[in-house]
Amino acid sequence: MALVVQKFGGTSVGSIDRIRNVARRALATQRAGHRVVLIVSAMSGETNRLLGLAHEVAKIPDAREMDAIATTGEQVSAALTAMAIQVEGGKARSLLGHQVRILTDDAFTKARIKAIDSSRIIEALDRGEIAVVAGFQGVDAEGNLTTLGRGGSDTSAVAVAAAIGADECEIYTDVDGVYTTDPNVCPSARKVDRISYEEMLELASLGAKVLQIRSVEIAMKYNVPIHVRSSFNDQPGTVVTGEDASLEGATVSGVAYDKNEARVHVVGVDDRPGIAADLFEKIAEKNISVDMIVQNVTTDADPRAAITFTLGKTDLARAKAWIESIAKNVGAREVRYDEDVVKVSIVGSGMRSHAGIAAKMFRLLANEGINIQAIATSEIRVSCLVASKYTELAVRALHDGFGLNKP
Amino acid sequence: MALVVQKFGGTSVGSIDRIRNVARRALATQRAGHRVVLIVSAMSGETNRLLGLAHEVAKIPDAREMDAIATTGEQVSAALTAMAIQVEGGKARSLLGHQVRILTDDAFTKARIKAIDSSRIIEALDRGEIAVVAGFQGVDAEGNLTTLGRGGSDTSAVAVAAAIGADECEIYTDVDGVYTTDPNVCPSARKVDRISYEEMLELASLGAKVLQIRSVEIAMKYNVPIHVRSSFNDQPGTVVTGEDASLEGATVSGVAYDKNEARVHVVGVDDRPGIAADLFEKIAEKNISVDMIVQNVTTDADPRAAITFTLGKTDLARAKAWIESIAKNVGAREVRYDEDVVKVSIVGSGMRSHAGIAAKMFRLLANEGINIQAIATSEIRVSCLVASKYTELAVRALHDGFGLNKP
Repeated sequence: MALVVQKFGGTSVGSIDRIRNVARRALATQRAGHRVVLIVSAMSGETNRLLGLAHEVAKIPDAREMDAIATTGEQVSAALTAMAIQVEGGKARSLLGHQVRILTDDAFTKARIKAIDSSRIIEALDRGEIAVVAGFQGVDAEGNLTTLGRGGSDTSAVAVAAAIGADECEIYTDVDGVYTTDPNVCPSARKVDRISYEEMLELASLGAKVLQIRSVEIAMKYNVPIHVRSSFNDQPGTVVTGEDASLEGATVSGVAYDKNEARVHVVGVDDRPGIAADLFEKIAEKNISVDMIVQNVTTDADPRAAITFTLGKTDLARAKAWIESIAKNVGAREVRYDEDVVKVSIVGSGMRSHAGIAAKMFRLLANEGINIQAIATSEIRVSCLVASKYTELAVRALHDGFGLNKP
Repeated sequence: MALVVQKFGGTSVGSIDRIRNVARRALATQRAGHRVVLIVSAMSGETNRLLGLAHEVAKIPDAREMDAIATTGEQVSAALTAMAIQVEGGKARSLLGHQVRILTDDAFTKARIKAIDSSRIIEALDRGEIAVVAGFQGVDAEGNLTTLGRGGSDTSAVAVAAAIGADECEIYTDVDGVYTTDPNVCPSARKVDRISYEEMLELASLGAKVLQIRSVEIAMKYNVPIHVRSSFNDQPGTVVTGEDASLEGATVSGVAYDKNEARVHVVGVDDRPGIAADLFEKIAEKNISVDMIVQNVTTDADPRAAITFTLGKTDLARAKAWIESIAKNVGAREVRYDEDVVKVSIVGSGMRSHAGIAAKMFRLLANEGINIQAIATSEIRVSCLVASKYTELAVRALHDGFGLNKP
């Protein structure tokens, strides 16, 4: 007998028929001898409808009141799911954030979980019920309703799984699992059976939107295995665990790309110590996060340096004026911007123990005539900034070049 | 400076524009120097939409889950109203049943209030906020969400007013106040300025649906003045208070009618002690409430009695079989039913001190050729059962006959 948390997203509970499917699936798991906790999102479209109402009233609605409204989406889907289980002959009850008690801080619309009281859930399981917990929501110490931010139901699911000591947290979604790369870009992409938390974190932060980053961080911290799988079939999906995926022999586990960054090129900066610190300290003061940073080596012919970095495209507009005044202060000749860039990355725990992975990546790109504009690395990732027109070409070349097209 | 509770029903918060009006009205009251607590219903149509979803899942949905769903309607309207007040430059916060803490029993879908903690509301008022309390909802001792039944927001409003010691509870609705009778039936109907709790209770129970009966009972118990008025204009409405309306000189305050009762006529019953008790005890066991009861006087020529009573039309179908078997046991010859009846009533505290009111009522009906099928009286009410085709004729004759058409 296992203790299983099953999380269903908005499309999986998007209609009464789909809610019935969720009920049947949960009951099948229970009838196979397991204890089952469900975490449900709002029915797809419902959160947007609710936030739309709020925005009709106020351009910038009060965050506390926003959360009071947004939490109703999961409240309704949790109660409907409990009813659907009862109709199928099972026992169930819905539990809201303030009923479970999922205690969060008071950062409305983006609250973080501080503690979860597992007793209500365990009591329900002990009565033979399926506990249906409303995802995405919590309550602060004052009893105010809070939400965990978009995609927060993944976080709810993993945090509840950790709190009750679940054997596994199943995340049901509309894809079959985690892929070696985006199948829409690379036809030879394959579903992976297992992946490590760290790899999943790198992939998630690089734009592979299968799991919310925070949910993976919590899973890693409490060592909760996550099973990402499809709500539309019974095939096994991808298990995200603490096991080092390199044991399986794969050096590179996936290829990710991110089109949301813009490149800033600051030309002709004084080449003296502290210039880069001046520049990036001032950018950080504006609460803008910068990703890849490259400083050119100066030559005798041109003793002035050039600094290249990337930031989010959505930050670029408000950052431009600041960047130019800061650049002027450090003696820059010119600032150039480029939004037609993509960050292509290879991720894999196996890189740690394999030399030459980065060099092989550069060679694979060079073979396709793709110029690299900037490079950034972590222990299990190498990222290259290239012109966005090369996105598909670069992803496919790296994917197959590292053998990800073969099982 | 007064402490005022203002309750707005579903049509008054039925759109974003109307919610803005509610916000402006509450702020105007606050800016006039008062402390304001709002109670809001769900946006009109929303409760039906939510219950519709539940009924799509289950024919007879679980009552606990029904309440978890239904409470979201007021949760959304309370938060939107708080936002709208903020947009107008005011301070406000929404408070849900479990946040205020409106403690109820656990009779889901028809819970009764046991206690209200006023501290959260008072704290909000002390911060200069308008407290926007979600109507219709509470929480039981276990933290389960409950609802007070249809129209329960009136009850929430009066109970909150009693708990915080409000000077007045204003009930905003889509009519101007309480009328001497139904204006749709009697064109000379007038709005009354003041009416007593007892009169209002009699009128409410007789089908004048301006206020929920329980809200009037609570107002009477805690002596909270209720001001029923229109949310579409600034005219004063009707004040419901503990003052005896007969001080104003009116003997009869209103004429009500109720088409929801059916007449049952049990003919040829044994005329011995205990027969009526037998009959009505057995009906009561079936949890069917009986209203008017008349037992004919027996004569030497016909020593058998006839018993006439009324019950709700919706109860009649399931009651018929029982009534017939019970009637047979008490030796009845025949049971006849009549659904084409209406109960017409005159209500007024002034009746207590005026003899001949009932006689005048019978005379007014007789003058119109209307036959009376049954009579029932209370201290401040006389009701007559007549054929339903006489509804308008009877109401108008009584209304104008008792001078209610004149100020």
